[in-house]
Amino acid sequence: MDFTPSKRSLEYRERLIQFMRNEIEPIESNYHKENRRLNPDGNWREWQLAPVIEELKQKAKAAGLWNLFLPDDELGAGLTTLEYAPLAEVMGHSLIAPEIFNCNAPDTGNMEVLYHFGSAAQKEQWLKPLLAGEIRSVFGMTEPDVASSDATNMQTTIVADGDDVVINGRKWWSTGIGHPNAKLAIVMGLTDPEADRHARHSMVLVPLDTDGVTIERMLPAFGEYDAPYGHGEVRFENVRVPKANLIGNLGDGFKIAQGRLGPGRIHHCMRALGAAEKALQLFIQRGQDRIGFGKPLLQLGGNLERLADMRIAIDQARLLTFYAAWKIDQVGAMKALTEISAIKVAVPNVLQQVVDASIQIHGGAGVSHDVPLTALFATARVLRIADGPDEVHRATIAKMELRKYRGA
Amino acid sequence: MDFTPSKRSLEYRERLIQFMRNEIEPIESNYHKENRRLNPDGNWREWQLAPVIEELKQKAKAAGLWNLFLPDDELGAGLTTLEYAPLAEVMGHSLIAPEIFNCNAPDTGNMEVLYHFGSAAQKEQWLKPLLAGEIRSVFGMTEPDVASSDATNMQTTIVADGDDVVINGRKWWSTGIGHPNAKLAIVMGLTDPEADRHARHSMVLVPLDTDGVTIERMLPAFGEYDAPYGHGEVRFENVRVPKANLIGNLGDGFKIAQGRLGPGRIHHCMRALGAAEKALQLFIQRGQDRIGFGKPLLQLGGNLERLADMRIAIDQARLLTFYAAWKIDQVGAMKALTEISAIKVAVPNVLQQVVDASIQIHGGAGVSHDVPLTALFATARVLRIADGPDEVHRATIAKMELRKYRGA
Amino acid sequence: MDFTPSKRSLEYRERLIQFMRNEIEPIESNYHKENRRLNPDGNWREWQLAPVIEELKQKAKAAGLWNLFLPDDELGAGLTTLEYAPLAEVMGHSLIAPEIFNCNAPDTGNMEVLYHFGSAAQKEQWLKPLLAGEIRSVFGMTEPDVASSDATNMQTTIVADGDDVVINGRKWWSTGIGHPNAKLAIVMGLTDPEADRHARHSMVLVPLDTDGVTIERMLPAFGEYDAPYGHGEVRFENVRVPKANLIGNLGDGFKIAQGRLGPGRIHHCMRALGAAEKALQLFIQRGQDRIGFGKPLLQLGGNLERLADMRIAIDQARLLTFYAAWKIDQVGAMKALTEISAIKVAVPNVLQQVVDASIQIHGGAGVSHDVPLTALFATARVLRIADGPDEVHRATIAKMELRKYRGA
Amino acid sequence: MDFTPSKRSLEYRERLIQFMRNEIEPIESNYHKENRRLNPDGNWREWQLAPVIEELKQKAKAAGLWNLFLPDDELGAGLTTLEYAPLAEVMGHSLIAPEIFNCNAPDTGNMEVLYHFGSAAQKEQWLKPLLAGEIRSVFGMTEPDVASSDATNMQTTIVADGDDVVINGRKWWSTGIGHPNAKLAIVMGLTDPEADRHARHSMVLVPLDTDGVTIERMLPAFGEYDAPYGHGEVRFENVRVPKANLIGNLGDGFKIAQGRLGPGRIHHCMRALGAAEKALQLFIQRGQDRIGFGKPLLQLGGNLERLADMRIAIDQARLLTFYAAWKIDQVGAMKALTEISAIKVAVPNVLQQVVDASIQIHGGAGVSHDVPLTALFATARVLRIADGPDEVHRATIAKMELRKYRGA
Repeated sequence: MDFTPSKRSLEYRERLIQFMRNEIEPIESNYHKENRRLNPDGNWREWQLAPVIEELKQKAKAAGLWNLFLPDDELGAGLTTLEYAPLAEVMGHSLIAPEIFNCNAPDTGNMEVLYHFGSAAQKEQWLKPLLAGEIRSVFGMTEPDVASSDATNMQTTIVADGDDVVINGRKWWSTGIGHPNAKLAIVMGLTDPEADRHARHSMVLVPLDTDGVTIERMLPAFGEYDAPYGHGEVRFENVRVPKANLIGNLGDGFKIAQGRLGPGRIHHCMRALGAAEKALQLFIQRGQDRIGFGKPLLQLGGNLERLADMRIAIDQARLLTFYAAWKIDQVGAMKALTEISAIKVAVPNVLQQVVDASIQIHGGAGVSHDVPLTALFATARVLRIADGPDEVHRATIAKMELRKYRGA
Repeated sequence: MDFTPSKRSLEYRERLIQFMRNEIEPIESNYHKENRRLNPDGNWREWQLAPVIEELKQKAKAAGLWNLFLPDDELGAGLTTLEYAPLAEVMGHSLIAPEIFNCNAPDTGNMEVLYHFGSAAQKEQWLKPLLAGEIRSVFGMTEPDVASSDATNMQTTIVADGDDVVINGRKWWSTGIGHPNAKLAIVMGLTDPEADRHARHSMVLVPLDTDGVTIERMLPAFGEYDAPYGHGEVRFENVRVPKANLIGNLGDGFKIAQGRLGPGRIHHCMRALGAAEKALQLFIQRGQDRIGFGKPLLQLGGNLERLADMRIAIDQARLLTFYAAWKIDQVGAMKALTEISAIKVAVPNVLQQVVDASIQIHGGAGVSHDVPLTALFATARVLRIADGPDEVHRATIAKMELRKYRGA
Repeated sequence: MDFTPSKRSLEYRERLIQFMRNEIEPIESNYHKENRRLNPDGNWREWQLAPVIEELKQKAKAAGLWNLFLPDDELGAGLTTLEYAPLAEVMGHSLIAPEIFNCNAPDTGNMEVLYHFGSAAQKEQWLKPLLAGEIRSVFGMTEPDVASSDATNMQTTIVADGDDVVINGRKWWSTGIGHPNAKLAIVMGLTDPEADRHARHSMVLVPLDTDGVTIERMLPAFGEYDAPYGHGEVRFENVRVPKANLIGNLGDGFKIAQGRLGPGRIHHCMRALGAAEKALQLFIQRGQDRIGFGKPLLQLGGNLERLADMRIAIDQARLLTFYAAWKIDQVGAMKALTEISAIKVAVPNVLQQVVDASIQIHGGAGVSHDVPLTALFATARVLRIADGPDEVHRATIAKMELRKYRGA
Repeated sequence: MDFTPSKRSLEYRERLIQFMRNEIEPIESNYHKENRRLNPDGNWREWQLAPVIEELKQKAKAAGLWNLFLPDDELGAGLTTLEYAPLAEVMGHSLIAPEIFNCNAPDTGNMEVLYHFGSAAQKEQWLKPLLAGEIRSVFGMTEPDVASSDATNMQTTIVADGDDVVINGRKWWSTGIGHPNAKLAIVMGLTDPEADRHARHSMVLVPLDTDGVTIERMLPAFGEYDAPYGHGEVRFENVRVPKANLIGNLGDGFKIAQGRLGPGRIHHCMRALGAAEKALQLFIQRGQDRIGFGKPLLQLGGNLERLADMRIAIDQARLLTFYAAWKIDQVGAMKALTEISAIKVAVPNVLQQVVDASIQIHGGAGVSHDVPLTALFATARVLRIADGPDEVHRATIAKMELRKYRGA
């Protein structure tokens, strides 16, 4: 259990902090206003990426703050999960930072899938432009008509037909599908319902301009479309792609999906902890600046106790996430199921609690767009559902715990 | 402590339920979609009221389900606070019901102010069209630059100048100010900072088309502008109205504001309980309909325990609200401060808890617009801040409790 | 829903308060010390009732503050459940008050059983001396070897044999079995495992001096034996009593048990609310008297917010208990299952929360015998288990709630 | 942040686990029964140490599992705080283990004080027999008449008089003072109220047989005297000891006390986590063994979710404690104030929550002596008060957090 940050990780962290302070923070509040004007909710078919983001991407790339998530020395920074974790936390302070550093979900997970499981041709065609930040991608997993927390419910089919596979079905909460750069979907679907529970599904690469792919609508999360990053609903109707687009073979979907989730959950949780630190910082600043009944709000009622409880909760959750990251690095995600599920429950709930308190001390401003708190709230609230709701992860933890008593 | 609903209250309740079932529920989900198209967020200066609402208003008026909140036999239904309470709960099941029955905040409170404290001329000019549902009104209390939970912080001034009074300042969270029918603001401001703490403020009627009144923007609450009902920020710059527009006299503001709040909080809380019942109903329906791991979601994990806890919480909060309503009727709001503050803390928190659980069981749908849960969440969350944040009400309750020990 | 206390209830309440102030409070703290000396834990076979309690019983009886729980005009006070509820709350302020007023569990429930279901002979032999406070009784329900929250698990048997019935089994948490005046057990057991689920059990009167009845030990609850009132474990080995000792007939046990529980839970909950008020009062007194960091403890940190939350929680729980009592009076316990289960969950949890906070503000004194808080804590904690644990009552509430959706 | 257990720590841990499995667990439940018979509550002046404990002490000493807490290679095991932490957790599984391994509070803290600050003569006279397990000691800090969480309230005086110092005052919650081997008190008191806030107090060694030292009573905690280990109240009346008994000089008390608290809180928290694991283990065993409504209790309602939440809470709290231990080792306790206060709040609350849940699933057995849960509950509840109540630690954390914003 050595969570000591490596020298490389520390150096990247320091440079990230500088970049965010010098390049991102100064433009951020204006960006959000401009971006809302540029990308009105009603108009998602014409969403654009604000030019300032593209400029900052180039700056970040030039500074070598690029693809830090990828555990490959040449294509990425070659950092372990644990080394990357504190960097994800830094990025979590800002809602726009992840794309600027080409470390945005779901591209990171998709790039990992291509990196680990993609063919040479797939890497050349898709991984390369993704790593270059030229295109973006989505991941098609969750479906609107079934409880997707139970993967066996999945209704989308991926069926072989001659040299092709044919995809039929409907996915939603496909994050990033409205982004102007989105070109590729990695889609998971059912191939053989009679096969072993872990060999029924396949994963396939579907260019978004393929015939039969229809983006039906973008979905707001807590009232925000989060243009141009938000989530969409997409229909696949007799979508035909060559078999060469399969990742691995037919039936490999489940195995690939599992590998995808471990580091991804570390990234999500660390960004969420960065967001929690941001919300706590706003709590303190507002609490010191506003005066009520003759005192700074922080000095009133239970506010200082709440502050302490938030500090305790964040610090505990971070250590648990470091531990999960360390364990993934040491023994692999499949042997860290308890820890991965534990952070997936703990961290988003901590973020939700901290943001709720921060909203409260801001009064009316807290629920408006004047501070980014409702966006952070939506992040937390969605994260309690996405990648498996709290309840499913609690069930996993309980199952693993009971196993300890099986042999005894 | 007799909470038995009167025969009249029961009859109105039954008719309201029928009206909502027959007239409102069938059009509701389509209304929300249409209304979002009609009133895109970016365009608040051109917000409109959907024609269907105007039609339903006429139907409700024709059915005598109109102005039920007003404790006057001729102008309203002549119901006590306690008699009206269950009717407010019924209306709370739908976000559009209150306007349809001309029982929408802040108009109800403004009409009460005019009814109790307005001059004959003021009643003729403003109360009459408000009661007719022809115009709507706003209440200007909260300010952006100070902690408004401490009323002594108020910076807007209302100063006598010859036959006029002159208003300068800035208000926000002025609910309803973007509504196309909004014509009047009741504004509270500081008149004499040297006067006794309860005699410093005045309240004045300001037609929204008066020179110097500028609506600067509409404010989203949790990402929703809630067109055409939402909240705005408004600037008053040397706004001049005749002294005849004062409600009562200079210095009467605080006294009037206090009278306004008692029944208003009952209305808010009962509507919130109706909303909680709606959210619970959605929780149960989704939990029964969706299947995961071979069972309805309701049967999984702690869902049935959560259901029970929600039932307990709602029922307790409703009884407390009845009690507060009954006490207001019996001894007046000023002697029911503990109870009014207690429901103001308890009820919105119950609503937030229930809606959060209902969102969770809905998965992704829960945070989208496919169900009205995020709108109910915003209602709850805003209500924990509006009309005094939780913390201020807890302080009031503690103060009242300690008084019991003063003499002892 | 008329919770208005009747004139008779109010008068009794006032007289109870006076009696407690004048007779009980002055002797109480000394009583507890003396009683611990008189009844050392190790020595339960020789437990005695402190003479002062016997004196106060006579005074209470003389004052007519006696058997107030019994809804019979001649034998008791003839009060409804709702009328008695506030009296039980008053008694709950003191741990010794209930016996002094002959309103102590489980005697109250046992007297109700005899009153409603007992034969004339049973009433003469047992109800009379119980009403006179000359003897006391226990109720044998819970068993050590099975999850008694599921009544179908019950293992004790009550079997007819000629003119007798024979009882075999083991009960524990038989409250009051160590009391020197305890003479009678009402025992529930299995008669016919093949009968309909609600007709399997019987209830029988067993004098404690019958052959084969062995009190094996007294059980501490949170370290307290609560002499001479506490709980014991008792073995029934071929215990033979005449069939005339059956309450009703063989197979009537379940029906009788159900009738017993409704009012009994009101009594428990109202006493628990009295205890919560007592704990809150101690919280406030300590918080005002002790000085830390230059201020009364109450003014520090979140203490005033906690105070407000406790006031809200108690008031809500009390109203819910009034509502359950009112409903029992109006439509009977079997139609008030949701409400009875709801208070059974809500009230003990409120008491536990309030006592925990009160202990905390007392520091070390809080966990000692210098204040009665740990005894109140044990009351709360045991009450979350006795008469059905929280979880079973939540399941009942959920079941009743889902029934509303069955027909729809 | 390297929490990797050292090889030595791992070896000790393995041997401790074996010792506990082979020597302590088999005798434990019988020990508690015997010990209650041997040491009835009413009789504390004659408390004895059960012979089996003395035997096990010798075995542990012979096995080299002795004084593991002391960071000295010769006198103890020479382990760092972090290396010792997992050993303290193992000991926490049993209430009697700490004394058996000579690692019981407050002796550990007292030995540390003597080790770090004692004179050669003091070490010879007191540290030696303490390390040998021949005598035991108490620490006199908390006082009955003031809020001791504010150290400036301390009333006991330690005043120089010629070659002596004279002690007057009263202490309570002096842990271990009723133990037959208790021979020494380390007493803290006020020497110079005019001195700088951190130089007012002194610490002095007082043999318990000194004239003027009167143990007035033992104090139960949640009804348990915990013989022979519990807490007492002691009066110091003109107690005169030579100046050579001062630890350090007059005025050094505060400095010494601070040094004492860092590692001591790690020990307490790690033992508490061991206790939490024990309570969780009992929760699972009971939940698997008992059947209700046709299923193991664990499968009912929210029990598995609760299980998962407990696992998450314990794991987070352990990591935070490791972090605090590591920080103490790296930079000293004075620079780890946030972390030490954080675990002091987090861990006892986790233990209380876990024990409460475990009690609940045990039903009546849970509150009795048949399982050790109420003793663990008392441990948790007392720990939320001892060494500074939750509220004081939250205030410390908040203060430290705000300092980060001071310079900014």
